[in-house]
Amino acid sequence: MTPRVSLFRASTRVTEVTTRLADFFDEKQRLAATLGGQYADLWAAARHASEGGKKFRPALVVNTYEALGGDNQAAAVAVATAFELLHTAFLLHDDVIDGDTTRRGQPNLLGTFSAEASARGVSARSAATWGEASAILAGDLLIHAAQGQVARLSVAENKRLALLDLLEECVFVTAAGELADVSFSTSVQVPVLSDVVSMTQWKTAHYSFQAPLQAGAILADASEATVRGLSEFGRNIGIAFQLRDDILGAFGAEDETGKSSTSDLREGKMTLLMCSALQRSDTDELAGILSQAEITASDADRVRQILQSSGARDFIEGLITDYAHFAIAAIDSPAIPSSLRLQLEEVAHKACDRSA
Amino acid sequence: MTPRVSLFRASTRVTEVTTRLADFFDEKQRLAATLGGQYADLWAAARHASEGGKKFRPALVVNTYEALGGDNQAAAVAVATAFELLHTAFLLHDDVIDGDTTRRGQPNLLGTFSAEASARGVSARSAATWGEASAILAGDLLIHAAQGQVARLSVAENKRLALLDLLEECVFVTAAGELADVSFSTSVQVPVLSDVVSMTQWKTAHYSFQAPLQAGAILADASEATVRGLSEFGRNIGIAFQLRDDILGAFGAEDETGKSSTSDLREGKMTLLMCSALQRSDTDELAGILSQAEITASDADRVRQILQSSGARDFIEGLITDYAHFAIAAIDSPAIPSSLRLQLEEVAHKACDRSA
Repeated sequence: MTPRVSLFRASTRVTEVTTRLADFFDEKQRLAATLGGQYADLWAAARHASEGGKKFRPALVVNTYEALGGDNQAAAVAVATAFELLHTAFLLHDDVIDGDTTRRGQPNLLGTFSAEASARGVSARSAATWGEASAILAGDLLIHAAQGQVARLSVAENKRLALLDLLEECVFVTAAGELADVSFSTSVQVPVLSDVVSMTQWKTAHYSFQAPLQAGAILADASEATVRGLSEFGRNIGIAFQLRDDILGAFGAEDETGKSSTSDLREGKMTLLMCSALQRSDTDELAGILSQAEITASDADRVRQILQSSGARDFIEGLITDYAHFAIAAIDSPAIPSSLRLQLEEVAHKACDRSA
Repeated sequence: MTPRVSLFRASTRVTEVTTRLADFFDEKQRLAATLGGQYADLWAAARHASEGGKKFRPALVVNTYEALGGDNQAAAVAVATAFELLHTAFLLHDDVIDGDTTRRGQPNLLGTFSAEASARGVSARSAATWGEASAILAGDLLIHAAQGQVARLSVAENKRLALLDLLEECVFVTAAGELADVSFSTSVQVPVLSDVVSMTQWKTAHYSFQAPLQAGAILADASEATVRGLSEFGRNIGIAFQLRDDILGAFGAEDETGKSSTSDLREGKMTLLMCSALQRSDTDELAGILSQAEITASDADRVRQILQSSGARDFIEGLITDYAHFAIAAIDSPAIPSSLRLQLEEVAHKACDRSA
């Protein structure tokens, strides 16, 4: 779910999103302080959680909007801000669900609050509850705030309603993806390949690529063909992006990705890479390792060998190429202005060919 | 947080809220089924979670609106629906935070999903993760849906924005109350009486009474004095309502309240009743019992004796009477039409004098 590469060159509009987020959190922290110091701390931590990323979802919104001739920059910045707030909210709740206390190598909100409570002598169980409660509440507040950005847009009513519908669909589909992901990692559901493709599209591609592109286009009064082409591009490049993430999660250099190359394994994440390896390997060795309570470094090395020797890694590399081609084909249309097409082709290459 | 008494007589408008909720869930369940059976199950369970309550928050919105002469019934029903969705979302996340698997004596969403996973042979830890993830996601979806009701209102822009601000404040204040509540029960913070009064107002009174009354009044174009009077009524009666809940939680008949009379104790809930008892009792006996990992039936009996003998129960009974008086005084004004005043006085009496 985490972008670890800048998909775009620096943009003035993305800087405006950063400023808008800063203003938003300034105001909330000020108000929160009137309801107690720990509530102000919660808002400060929510702000911190929103600051780590590369802001590529906002960039997709504002760059698409500008390339399609939109001239209400304030509205574009507000919609872009909504996607960044939503992204932060999803990360906060994803960490609670996965029981993760770190993100990008640093303690996350859950981990920070739990550790602070422990340091003050609170029992381990209570400290965990405190961390989880804080992260759940912070995510709730940002889910609400994201929609607030769109609900307060000063644009024509039909456009505001279309954007509200888009955001609602986005939350709806992402929740379905998260639920499917958890059903796989908890063994509530044993997935086949097509289930994992769907999960990937729902959980990541939709809110990270499809919806931001559609939002920029809808706000710019783009034609239906343009919105459809961008959505199709987003769907395919989003899947390719996540598949690259899965490969980096298993084979990437930790000092580049900022993520332990055994964490996906330890969490039992059912990636398309793993699912295809399980279907291809002719022994139960891989399933046996994954079912262990603890994964050692040598287990992880053996898993990487199997991912390679089974042909799963090559299969996924091939899929990344295919989905990138589908994405680029979707915008090879007169409905997509060439300046936007060039930008998106660059996004596609960066999303697929990256080491971090 | 749970109303267990009907504060209002039956109302056509509340029936319309029930219908609107049913239509909302019908549509979402239909769409969810296209994203997999378990997602449809999640929406069915979210619907079930929304069906148990007495709908007194929606009733406050629509009855206030009608009594103040409002005639856009569809808008009032939409705003009322927003409060019911928000309430359900808060309950779902509250249960995750408290680790509760039941509500009103029945398995809640978390408990149902966990139990189903266990029954299918999933490990206890994975089943718990599955239940928690499901409840977190269901709450997220309903938080978003609540705001969606207000964001799509077809009313003058300034009114829509005022209602969006009201809902935002409502979510903001309730989260502060929930955070304070958890800080007390986890011993992250040791509260004094005034902290517990604030927590009670933030966590319960604001979204259950103040905000629904204000929303009905704002939608009806009521004067600032009317909105202020209703807000003041809501604040005070909301506190009285929760204090009655706290007493019922300790002394109520389980067959009437539908709630175990030891569950507040087991969860370490810091109610105003308990806080005042801790301050009044001259030995460490009460604190000792509360710090135990397990509370037996005889421990609970002893706690009830101390709540009584320390004078804490009488103190809270006195506070309930006081807050009810403050509430009724707040609406004793020409700014509140007498028909509304009579209804609210009845609400006040029912909120304070109830056994369930």
